[in-house]
Amino acid sequence: MKVIIVGGVAGGASCAARLRRLDEKAEILMVERGPYVSYANCGLPYHVGGSIDNESSLLVATEQMFRSVFAIDCRTNCEVIGINSRLKTVDLKNHLTGEVTTEKYDKLLLSPGSAPIRPPLPGIDLPGIFSVRTVPDARNIRAWLDRSTDRSVGNSFTGCDTVSKPKHAVVVGGGFIGLEMVESFIERGLEVTLIEKLNQVMPPLDREMAILVERYLTKHGVKVELSDGVAGFRNTTNGSLEVLTESGKAHPADIVILAIGVRPETALAKMAGIELGQLGGMRVDEHMRTSDPDIFAVGDAVEVKNFVTGQWALIPLAGPANRQGRIAADVIAERDSRFRGTQGTSICKLFEAAISQTGISEKQLKEMGDTDYEKIYLYPNSHAGYYPGAKMLVIKLLFRKSNGLILGAQVLGEDGVPKRIDSFAMAIQMGCTIYDLEESELCYAPPFGSGKDPVNFAGMIAANILRGDMPVCHWEDTDKGFLLDVRNPQEIAVEAVPGATNIPLPQLRSRLGELPKDKEIMVFCRSAQRSYYATRILMQNGFNVRNISGSMLSRSHRAEG
Amino acid sequence: MKVIIVGGVAGGASCAARLRRLDEKAEILMVERGPYVSYANCGLPYHVGGSIDNESSLLVATEQMFRSVFAIDCRTNCEVIGINSRLKTVDLKNHLTGEVTTEKYDKLLLSPGSAPIRPPLPGIDLPGIFSVRTVPDARNIRAWLDRSTDRSVGNSFTGCDTVSKPKHAVVVGGGFIGLEMVESFIERGLEVTLIEKLNQVMPPLDREMAILVERYLTKHGVKVELSDGVAGFRNTTNGSLEVLTESGKAHPADIVILAIGVRPETALAKMAGIELGQLGGMRVDEHMRTSDPDIFAVGDAVEVKNFVTGQWALIPLAGPANRQGRIAADVIAERDSRFRGTQGTSICKLFEAAISQTGISEKQLKEMGDTDYEKIYLYPNSHAGYYPGAKMLVIKLLFRKSNGLILGAQVLGEDGVPKRIDSFAMAIQMGCTIYDLEESELCYAPPFGSGKDPVNFAGMIAANILRGDMPVCHWEDTDKGFLLDVRNPQEIAVEAVPGATNIPLPQLRSRLGELPKDKEIMVFCRSAQRSYYATRILMQNGFNVRNISGSMLSRSHRAEG
Repeated sequence: MKVIIVGGVAGGASCAARLRRLDEKAEILMVERGPYVSYANCGLPYHVGGSIDNESSLLVATEQMFRSVFAIDCRTNCEVIGINSRLKTVDLKNHLTGEVTTEKYDKLLLSPGSAPIRPPLPGIDLPGIFSVRTVPDARNIRAWLDRSTDRSVGNSFTGCDTVSKPKHAVVVGGGFIGLEMVESFIERGLEVTLIEKLNQVMPPLDREMAILVERYLTKHGVKVELSDGVAGFRNTTNGSLEVLTESGKAHPADIVILAIGVRPETALAKMAGIELGQLGGMRVDEHMRTSDPDIFAVGDAVEVKNFVTGQWALIPLAGPANRQGRIAADVIAERDSRFRGTQGTSICKLFEAAISQTGISEKQLKEMGDTDYEKIYLYPNSHAGYYPGAKMLVIKLLFRKSNGLILGAQVLGEDGVPKRIDSFAMAIQMGCTIYDLEESELCYAPPFGSGKDPVNFAGMIAANILRGDMPVCHWEDTDKGFLLDVRNPQEIAVEAVPGATNIPLPQLRSRLGELPKDKEIMVFCRSAQRSYYATRILMQNGFNVRNISGSMLSRSHRAEG
Repeated sequence: MKVIIVGGVAGGASCAARLRRLDEKAEILMVERGPYVSYANCGLPYHVGGSIDNESSLLVATEQMFRSVFAIDCRTNCEVIGINSRLKTVDLKNHLTGEVTTEKYDKLLLSPGSAPIRPPLPGIDLPGIFSVRTVPDARNIRAWLDRSTDRSVGNSFTGCDTVSKPKHAVVVGGGFIGLEMVESFIERGLEVTLIEKLNQVMPPLDREMAILVERYLTKHGVKVELSDGVAGFRNTTNGSLEVLTESGKAHPADIVILAIGVRPETALAKMAGIELGQLGGMRVDEHMRTSDPDIFAVGDAVEVKNFVTGQWALIPLAGPANRQGRIAADVIAERDSRFRGTQGTSICKLFEAAISQTGISEKQLKEMGDTDYEKIYLYPNSHAGYYPGAKMLVIKLLFRKSNGLILGAQVLGEDGVPKRIDSFAMAIQMGCTIYDLEESELCYAPPFGSGKDPVNFAGMIAANILRGDMPVCHWEDTDKGFLLDVRNPQEIAVEAVPGATNIPLPQLRSRLGELPKDKEIMVFCRSAQRSYYATRILMQNGFNVRNISGSMLSRSHRAEG
């Protein structure tokens, strides 16, 4: 059996190595268009920023290693320029020699990845505008920044050393790579403007959660420009760039990063005549097989099922790509492995914080017209508050109203985020309900958690709602209710809510007569804990009451409109 | 309905607050023998060490708060001195006034906690010997250390300022509290000796994992004395203490901490005439009800089912206590809540490291005579190796040989431990198999993980074994096999294994003729990854081969005998 693997990073490399382990006799040819196989493209933003200084540390495995350890014919700088799926051949061009050869295959695996989107805007090809996708991309960015620095001929006494030192960076696009590049540039001492066409950064998050990220960026000196698309680029008289936006602004830039997103590379799919999905990725079944039974595909270029939403998705992430490569190898070796689909777990470091999500967002639920869900916001400490270094976590949990199934979670914070998002991710994978979260036994010692972990708390709050113990509402529902604030006067002096009536919780039992029996009372405090106690008191005294989830804390980052 | 709750920390306080939320009308009396309710006893070692400087930050909720917010009659310094379960009364003694009163109950909840074990050894009552259980304990320890310091009258010029400054601490017992106290004393600049009667520290770990903890302690300057019990204590002529051991040693000590363990407080149970279990804790059903239908019990003083082992256990941990308190409140309020039992999840900070476990240990499996299990060791990076700060994790995973069910995990390391132990904990709770772990979608970005997370890796290795792709063995099985080392000569020059034959992996395919077909080949490398590749090559060439799990890395901490 001869297997040709096209693309030697993530999914392709995983498939090649796994296939060799399963089948010593298979003839395996792995070709990679670029100069490197199996490199760590997730590390590229950090290489640009300097926290990974050495380019070579990004090279996980070499061509030589694939040959010597895996007995795989591995060829870099080698591109597929034609596929004949009837004859089962591929035409390969060696970019170093120009030579073209034709190879036969029994099975073909396509792992071409994705390409950064470069819209055909005026000035898009000006020097100084970069994408971040490959090792050479990172090298070019570093060289651009260093070259500019080298041109600086002044010194600190004459004050003229700033003339051509790069000062301004513009990052276009506020997704994962955009945010990582923002951080990298800030760490290099640049002034950074982030331009995002949508009305929020980090699209997997719901907007009110993204607001916290935007504030965090601003706090770190980043100029955040939302709801404004890039219209073009031009050179200024002093030789630097300007980024022009649809709203008519011009942002100075010594370097521009395009991080608008990626699109699946489908040139190979077209050559092979295989089916594409509606999102433009290759269509595969759960065995990672394309519409051609002898052609498999994995990685950024395929559409996969999100098993939480049930919808097709493009998930350009390393984890799924690696797992898919492994599964394709299994199937090629005649095993019955299946890809379960993805649940959209992801995380992004941003300065001291981590931004993470798993499962489905409220935005997606709304797009799908799904109304069988409830949501909660909570703001627990990352670990016991009395132990130094505890930070507030912000958690949004989405779950089925009808049965408590966990649908999605979004977790932000400066400590303890991976611990929580992974617990939610495992819970979603295993079809847990919020009732399971109530009972989860997660690790606890004061430096790492609390006797009731934030994950337990999320489960308890959600279960209180579904058991009918705590009717809940949200700020967007508070137009016509009677607003009751159970905080102390000192807290209200700092920030009051217009129109709210104040009865501090300790006085509530003795002042019930002041509350209306004919209106829905919507109660809040700082974090929704005291207002939960108030909700219980009022319910048992015959009032119609709801607790405002997250209370003042969720109010502080609610999305308008 | 009148409910009396005995014990106002963790389980008792949780029960009281929850019960009020469920029932505004219930009359609730909560009594606490000590001066504080709802204090953070998990924080006491850190208060002694100084990382939590302020005693008041350990007081989570006050007597006053229970009264004002929860309308609970909360009495501190109030001890139960008699229970008449036929008449349903308790006799209460107010320690401040000496007054004794009798109160009637409809339901009684016992949450008396546990008491530090103080064996009746010679000298046990000498000044300077402390347990760490209550706020006054911590206060006394701090005062003892400070008083000794104050007595120091010299100065740094005369060199006589060390006379009475505490220099030596002896900690007896190497469990959670013992290790936390060791760290606290080291941080205060003391020389610390840790004496442990067992042949390992941290009893929930298997011994070969505990060896790593012992080395880590030694590396931090702690003198670790294993397999030696304390025989007694005596004063020396200069006024300090000496700890005498069964082996005849005498360890100097300016302060001694007894952290031998705790025993359930069962005086109340005896007064009430309720049933105790074989481990000495109160016997309760899944509703936290004792043998008396109107008496409930929670926390350290009850025996609970470990749902992984199926056995009764004493689990003196805050998390289960809080959950039990909540469940008891539900049941008292006539709800059908059930405690699922415990799975023994725990974690301990030790300097930069975390030591964690969940589920069952190999030791426990052996004690139970259970042989339907397999184990693996792995040593992955805590996050992408190319991103700064990655540390090696040490993971031991135990799973059912017959069906892949996850039985237990032990995780040690200086980064990323909580993320992994909680994933394993959720997996065990939900009855996951190792095949589920292969497919888990956990959060990944270079600062937090790897494309294949350590949890995925554990699943993949285990699945390779159970699918028959990688027969496994352990160092204890290698007596009669043919040992094959596939590392490079440079690695072997650093450390060789006596009797092993070396064929570097890249040469293996061309040197198969040098290997025996009639013997079992046991192959290893540094971490068992290359030896896995070698195993695949050899299996497919007709050899009888096993991969030594963890290879040189597991060999470095194997337990003898």
